[in-house]
Amino acid sequence: MGANPPAALDDSTESTVRIPADHPGVTDLFAVLAYGEISAFYRLAEEAKLSPSLRGKVSVAAMAAAEMGHFETLNRALADRGVEVFDAMAPFVRALDAYHNSTDPSTWLESMVKFYVGDGLAADFYTVLASALAPEVGAVVRDVLAETDHSQFVVEEVRRAVATSRSERDRLTLWGRRLLGEAITQAQWVMAQRDELTELVLVATGDLNGVAALFEHMQTSHAERMRVLGLG
Amino acid sequence: MGANPPAALDDSTESTVRIPADHPGVTDLFAVLAYGEISAFYRLAEEAKLSPSLRGKVSVAAMAAAEMGHFETLNRALADRGVEVFDAMAPFVRALDAYHNSTDPSTWLESMVKFYVGDGLAADFYTVLASALAPEVGAVVRDVLAETDHSQFVVEEVRRAVATSRSERDRLTLWGRRLLGEAITQAQWVMAQRDELTELVLVATGDLNGVAALFEHMQTSHAERMRVLGLG
Repeated sequence: MGANPPAALDDSTESTVRIPADHPGVTDLFAVLAYGEISAFYRLAEEAKLSPSLRGKVSVAAMAAAEMGHFETLNRALADRGVEVFDAMAPFVRALDAYHNSTDPSTWLESMVKFYVGDGLAADFYTVLASALAPEVGAVVRDVLAETDHSQFVVEEVRRAVATSRSERDRLTLWGRRLLGEAITQAQWVMAQRDELTELVLVATGDLNGVAALFEHMQTSHAERMRVLGLG
Repeated sequence: MGANPPAALDDSTESTVRIPADHPGVTDLFAVLAYGEISAFYRLAEEAKLSPSLRGKVSVAAMAAAEMGHFETLNRALADRGVEVFDAMAPFVRALDAYHNSTDPSTWLESMVKFYVGDGLAADFYTVLASALAPEVGAVVRDVLAETDHSQFVVEEVRRAVATSRSERDRLTLWGRRLLGEAITQAQWVMAQRDELTELVLVATGDLNGVAALFEHMQTSHAERMRVLGLG
């Protein structure tokens, strides 16, 4: 990454539409986001079992329900393009399932960190793409990535736990690093599988250097999120 | 049950408010409904694993998300009464968990039948109560019981399966009977535990004969629902 970040990473410049609404990668983008919502829903519901309290379970159920609201938005956006959501999602099932299987939390706190960190990484990645998309397409992406107030619940739970336990803090710091690595591995796998999506990412970020800059940007934001959680 | 059903079961009469908004049983009513939504959410998310298709999993996730929307309505209604939802739900955790534990589906079709039949029984029970409540309280109850179009998905799945398999039909018919029995057992347990709720049910239905009539009404509606599913 040189002294000049790609336009997509530079908040000070006006975003310019470089990807028309009918770019074939847009369908892939909506589809990978849609399956992301479904897999996040089921993971959250599963991981809520680790919650020590009913309050925690209810918070997680509310997060999971919000994912389904996003799924409906993407389902409609795909239908508007004449695309059937289940067909469109199929190519992404393996990569997203692999991410979740390789980052299966063993404690409630690991689950909370994963939710916060995973959501943040996804937002970093897709927000950069959104800035290069036709406005009506970018709006769908931004809509489903919008941060909810559930994040605050996670931050408080984790900060409280690590403030009093050095070993918990060290453990969760390593966990956060692993989440970052797995997320980037799977993002690269997805792009490599789908030419249309690769092309979309290349156009959005400028070129291969732009893609590298995007992943560097994700690492910087990740470090900042870990600090917010009281980790790293 | 005599020739004249209690007013609450007679659709032709105007409903009359017999239970004021500040009746102490109203808090219990909102609370048992609220925990019902939470436990239904987690059961659906768990049972979705039994789905043979991604389409089924997504349908169940949407049903589960709808339960959380209802929970939020009840949470707000309790907050408006100055009641903390977690404290209020605590007395009902055991009975609802017991219902779910005693009716743990072992197949996808059992899970679908349970969803449809359980939702229907709850609607029968609470709709009768709603008709005797102050309008603003009754509106909350009716709102969270409103049938969604998800039921149609269930009806189609079950009808298709039992049309071609006599043994599946027999098995699910027995399953439906068991669900009815367990639901009534737990409803009676809940009422017996909570004086305020018992009183509310007695006032809503008229008297002990009215309560018996209500349970008879639930059995009749249950038989009709089983027929809709192609069972019994």
